Amino acid sequence: MKLVRYGDMGAEKPGMIDSDGTLRDLSAHVSDITGDMLSDASLAALGALDPASLPVVAGSPRIGACVGNIGKFLCIGLNYSDHAAETGADIPKHPILFFKANSAIVGPNDDVVMPRGSTHTDWEVELGVVIGTKAKYVTKENALDHVAGYCVVNDVSERHFQTQLTGQWTKGKSCDTFGPTGPWLVTRDEVEDVQNLSMSLDVNGKRMQTGNTNTMIFTVAEIIEHLSGLMTLHPGDVITTGTPPGVGMGIKPAPVYLKKGDVMSLTIEGLGTQTQKVDEDA
Amino acid sequence: MKLVRYGDMGAEKPGMIDSDGTLRDLSAHVSDITGDMLSDASLAALGALDPASLPVVAGSPRIGACVGNIGKFLCIGLNYSDHAAETGADIPKHPILFFKANSAIVGPNDDVVMPRGSTHTDWEVELGVVIGTKAKYVTKENALDHVAGYCVVNDVSERHFQTQLTGQWTKGKSCDTFGPTGPWLVTRDEVEDVQNLSMSLDVNGKRMQTGNTNTMIFTVAEIIEHLSGLMTLHPGDVITTGTPPGVGMGIKPAPVYLKKGDVMSLTIEGLGTQTQKVDEDA
Repeated sequence: MKLVRYGDMGAEKPGMIDSDGTLRDLSAHVSDITGDMLSDASLAALGALDPASLPVVAGSPRIGACVGNIGKFLCIGLNYSDHAAETGADIPKHPILFFKANSAIVGPNDDVVMPRGSTHTDWEVELGVVIGTKAKYVTKENALDHVAGYCVVNDVSERHFQTQLTGQWTKGKSCDTFGPTGPWLVTRDEVEDVQNLSMSLDVNGKRMQTGNTNTMIFTVAEIIEHLSGLMTLHPGDVITTGTPPGVGMGIKPAPVYLKKGDVMSLTIEGLGTQTQKVDEDA
Repeated sequence: MKLVRYGDMGAEKPGMIDSDGTLRDLSAHVSDITGDMLSDASLAALGALDPASLPVVAGSPRIGACVGNIGKFLCIGLNYSDHAAETGADIPKHPILFFKANSAIVGPNDDVVMPRGSTHTDWEVELGVVIGTKAKYVTKENALDHVAGYCVVNDVSERHFQTQLTGQWTKGKSCDTFGPTGPWLVTRDEVEDVQNLSMSLDVNGKRMQTGNTNTMIFTVAEIIEHLSGLMTLHPGDVITTGTPPGVGMGIKPAPVYLKKGDVMSLTIEGLGTQTQKVDEDA
């Protein structure tokens, strides 16, 4: 099942993409796609609906982040062996955790707006994991039972803010619009092997990142085990799981960063495509 | 005005402490103390009520975090010159930012529960700043106009998780119950000089931390200026602003950490007192 939120920012309605790719309205069945309707039972109830019975949404509305009211936006750094090599970093012993501000979350095709003073804004295509049921002290063997589904995330990163403004990456990760999330929340039953999904990111039509979740250092299950030993993961929390090679700061002989007017396009196998235009704050 | 939330966790009601220290119910006037009622106009409307007309709350209910539905819990590290010296760290050039998970937030007198495997849990009395109106690209000259008020925060920190689990402090800061917040949200009109508040923390009745906000490296206004240049601060966001000397990891000749049964008591001048018992997850 592909769940989606559509409409104006802050007033998104819940929807579903049917097998023909048509957007259908779920408003008669749920008020929004948020943590409190992501349990297996709630998702099964939606899955039991006949999509043909749901109203078709007319036109091409804006698509919002695929989960509303995200509690925590947890991010894993340096989680692809080939990306770690590209940045010159050692392979981490444990998943590296930082947070993005949840105020950074936007829809998958909303503009990415570089903040004032930004000269080092970079892209990162990532697999997002949406928690469906509370997870505390879970083991990797049953970790995926706590997942509602998966989505595409662009972990937009201002490298100067991230590394040169005195400690802790979160400064470069939390700017407004730096968290495009979606287009769809694809329920986990539709993802046969989350550790074998190809992914890519283009800038202005040129392929920059190519990867596959099979080069993750820590699997999704291992990440959930680790994080749930530190804190409770709640329904509607999103974990974004690191990026494969090809980010702008890794380009030789000189890094390449985003500029106003650039267009990013991100795809993960089975999870859809995001496209963002880059703008800047005056 | 001293605003407070009381009642069972997740079902707190809004209240006010009157000039005699009596808890009175505000439920007839607001549904909760959250970001959407922290504007100057909303606070002025509450301030215009005659406290004597509000129902007295019977008994001694649990006190919740003084703000509900906190969006971002932003934390400044190493912000007291004397604490930076104690940890051996350099004076930072910019405010050091990390996030605590908002799932770590609890009431001021709730138990602090050390997670499994914790052996280095430490205390940090801090001044919390509650944002009242949206702040983006504000200057320090008008930064405090965006503040609804102030509160006490215990930035409980697991030092091993913070520094030894591969990068980024947030792991040791985000455990469940590691963010006692309150007891009161004291509106900014009641705080004459936020840069001259004495503060202290006792463990089992022994004074461990003594400080004053007048040794902050970055003032509250400077912190808001810096953060609002990176991201929008929204009503109901909380910024906790660093801790003065006397944390457990700084004790010579050997660090001292919390153990089950310990009692922490934290006070900031004019902002009230928190008291937490330490427990541990089996």
